[in-house]
Amino acid sequence: MKLSNRILNMQFSPIRKLAPYAAEAKKRGTKVYHLNIGQPDVLTPDIFFKAISNFKENVLKYTESQGMDALQESFIEYYKKWGTEFAKDELLVTNGGSEAIMLTFMTLCDPGDEILSPEPFYTNYNGFAQVASAKMVPYLTKAEDGFHLPSKEVIESKITDKTRALMISNPGNPTGTVYTEEELRMLGDIAKEHDLFLIADEVYREFVYDGLKYTSALTLKDIEDRVIIVDSISKRYSACGARIGLVASKNKNLIHNIMKLCQSRLCVPTVEQIGAAALKDTPESYFIETRKEYQKRRDILMDGLKKIPGVVCQKPTGAFYIVAKLPVPDAEDFAKYLLTEFNKDGKTVMVAPAGGFYATPGLGKDEVRISYCLNCDDLKDAMDLLKVAIEEYQKVIK
Amino acid sequence: MKLSNRILNMQFSPIRKLAPYAAEAKKRGTKVYHLNIGQPDVLTPDIFFKAISNFKENVLKYTESQGMDALQESFIEYYKKWGTEFAKDELLVTNGGSEAIMLTFMTLCDPGDEILSPEPFYTNYNGFAQVASAKMVPYLTKAEDGFHLPSKEVIESKITDKTRALMISNPGNPTGTVYTEEELRMLGDIAKEHDLFLIADEVYREFVYDGLKYTSALTLKDIEDRVIIVDSISKRYSACGARIGLVASKNKNLIHNIMKLCQSRLCVPTVEQIGAAALKDTPESYFIETRKEYQKRRDILMDGLKKIPGVVCQKPTGAFYIVAKLPVPDAEDFAKYLLTEFNKDGKTVMVAPAGGFYATPGLGKDEVRISYCLNCDDLKDAMDLLKVAIEEYQKVIK
Ligand SMILES: Cc1ncc(COP(=O)(O)O)c(C=O)c1O
Ligand SMILES: Cc1ncc(COP(=O)(O)O)c(C=O)c1O
Repeated sequence: MKLSNRILNMQFSPIRKLAPYAAEAKKRGTKVYHLNIGQPDVLTPDIFFKAISNFKENVLKYTESQGMDALQESFIEYYKKWGTEFAKDELLVTNGGSEAIMLTFMTLCDPGDEILSPEPFYTNYNGFAQVASAKMVPYLTKAEDGFHLPSKEVIESKITDKTRALMISNPGNPTGTVYTEEELRMLGDIAKEHDLFLIADEVYREFVYDGLKYTSALTLKDIEDRVIIVDSISKRYSACGARIGLVASKNKNLIHNIMKLCQSRLCVPTVEQIGAAALKDTPESYFIETRKEYQKRRDILMDGLKKIPGVVCQKPTGAFYIVAKLPVPDAEDFAKYLLTEFNKDGKTVMVAPAGGFYATPGLGKDEVRISYCLNCDDLKDAMDLLKVAIEEYQKVIK
Repeated sequence: MKLSNRILNMQFSPIRKLAPYAAEAKKRGTKVYHLNIGQPDVLTPDIFFKAISNFKENVLKYTESQGMDALQESFIEYYKKWGTEFAKDELLVTNGGSEAIMLTFMTLCDPGDEILSPEPFYTNYNGFAQVASAKMVPYLTKAEDGFHLPSKEVIESKITDKTRALMISNPGNPTGTVYTEEELRMLGDIAKEHDLFLIADEVYREFVYDGLKYTSALTLKDIEDRVIIVDSISKRYSACGARIGLVASKNKNLIHNIMKLCQSRLCVPTVEQIGAAALKDTPESYFIETRKEYQKRRDILMDGLKKIPGVVCQKPTGAFYIVAKLPVPDAEDFAKYLLTEFNKDGKTVMVAPAGGFYATPGLGKDEVRISYCLNCDDLKDAMDLLKVAIEEYQKVIK
């Protein structure tokens, strides 16, 4: 009863694998601040729930594999704000951005093929690549450069005849980095010169701070048939549980082929699609308020980190994560310590060890990803706890 | 900009690929009876919708990757009726039975590995196998035997060192066949003797007619660590749009490994899970009524088919499908004809060409799958139309 090498080589999610320790801590009565997971506490727009409560069918049917008409139209309207007119045969509704990525990898990669990405990257890219028997090939970006891209030559040096696509998350998870127009242009040029696709995971498109300009891969009009957009309502509307995402491209042949995979899994959930379709009427003020709130939290986080001796990081400008180097030899051991041994006034903190966000073994060993999805008061408290915990841990491991 | 061979070799769903022709027919004002798709018209239990409308959270959050506690418990209670006590670490909630199958294939198969199944089989098994770079290896079952299994020797002759699992859908889609206790025992013996898993897709478990006894793979207690149950609420509760399914096994190590894949796609939709959890309170009368209704439809279908000269089929005893040999040389061409040219009193019929349900090229060319998810009056009308259409078509192709 052999299991596949694919599955045996796969890791548990570094974001979720410590969950059992957190559950035990909670059972012991400890309050756990979740700095490990990108689960926003911002309210989901009420129109989502209203739309659902207006659903009055008495048979819950399958929908079209590409998504309900109304939801496709809702997405099309959304992208107009970003200067792009998609047609219905240029986008497919998926089970979250997660499925959008998986379907894209399946469609581009045969076993052994490669996807090129800056590391650290969103850890589940590894999982989706393994699912497709493909490989994430990383090039390094560093905390001290704010995780911005290396030179064109460095990236090109990683390209082989197995390379199928460049991939970025912009803004970046776990780095919080917002790539510049020049960086996007450079990726576009590489894609063109080396005949590659460019997969742009833009699920955090709205989460850009300090008045910074955001450059979507949608602006690379000269290579639009190479650009594949991965998107999701999870973070944008704080609707993670809806599991509604999207893959979009001006390359109709690509979309046509991904549709085969969509058909085989039939469709995505009907009720959640109805809720999601209504989100197009979310007022602009929702995004402005949300952005303001996250920027405030980001500042609290940075203040907190600055107070901890030995922490290395740069101020992130997007998404709601930061990768910080901690003054500990093994961040995973420290993360476990937080949940199993540490406790101050009945409280502790949960963080995600960053090792799992690197493809190169050994990298990120002393780093954690911290997500700032907590309200300001909790976040302040969590940062104070983290400071104390590091001091205590340093004594313990001496 | 190469796409993967995986995707280029994949077919569009034979159930869904004629959908554009149906859409055009409808635009022309033609009423189309859908005998092509397993979309029940039976009402979804009202408790599903009640549970949803009672959902009062204002942030739509991710749930646990294995499914919400309440839904896992609901499934555990359901299986008790079938004589099996599952623990929470023996089942994972999935995006429909579809994802359950895909995750299972991923977990068992490396590229090139094989899954053994009677053909014709549920067409999307092919798609899921391709996704895993694995292969469906068929052994033939025939209309004249009611699509029952061949001898142990025939099945064993297909086993190679690449074979990872035996798979059945019971009752069968597209055949409507309910396997006997002896057939299940035989599969169990083969699994044991050749060190294989047995994947039992039992999404139609409740749909068994003529008072026939149903034998679940759950009864094979001596090989319970080899049995993988694929399940779904889609058909059982007429809740296809919920996209809630399940993979269950007494093999905890297997489930533990599948969990890695579940974590990478984060979770399944929250609102639909809440609806699904409530379904455990569906009264037994719901199943009895539904079964009665489908049996009546099955009889109408058989009466209708008997009246068409040249049709070959056996009375199915489960699910809501039949595979029938039609007196036409090319069933796909006929199916297209139904949607593009045929029309009687402004009405026509849509069927699924059966070729796509076979793995062996060329088989099933003159067969269609007919699903009897229509109410009795519509079904009668549809069968009358089918008779006329075959007569007209035979004239056209002469
Ligand atoms: C960069 C990035 N892409 C994709 C996803 C997938 O999100 P979902 O499947 O909820 O849309 C996430 C979730 O955290 C993410 O951070
Ligand atoms: C035999 C069989 N298995 C699995 C499925 C998948 O159904 P779902 O993904 O809706 O649970 C179907 C759907 O028709 C089916 O017929």
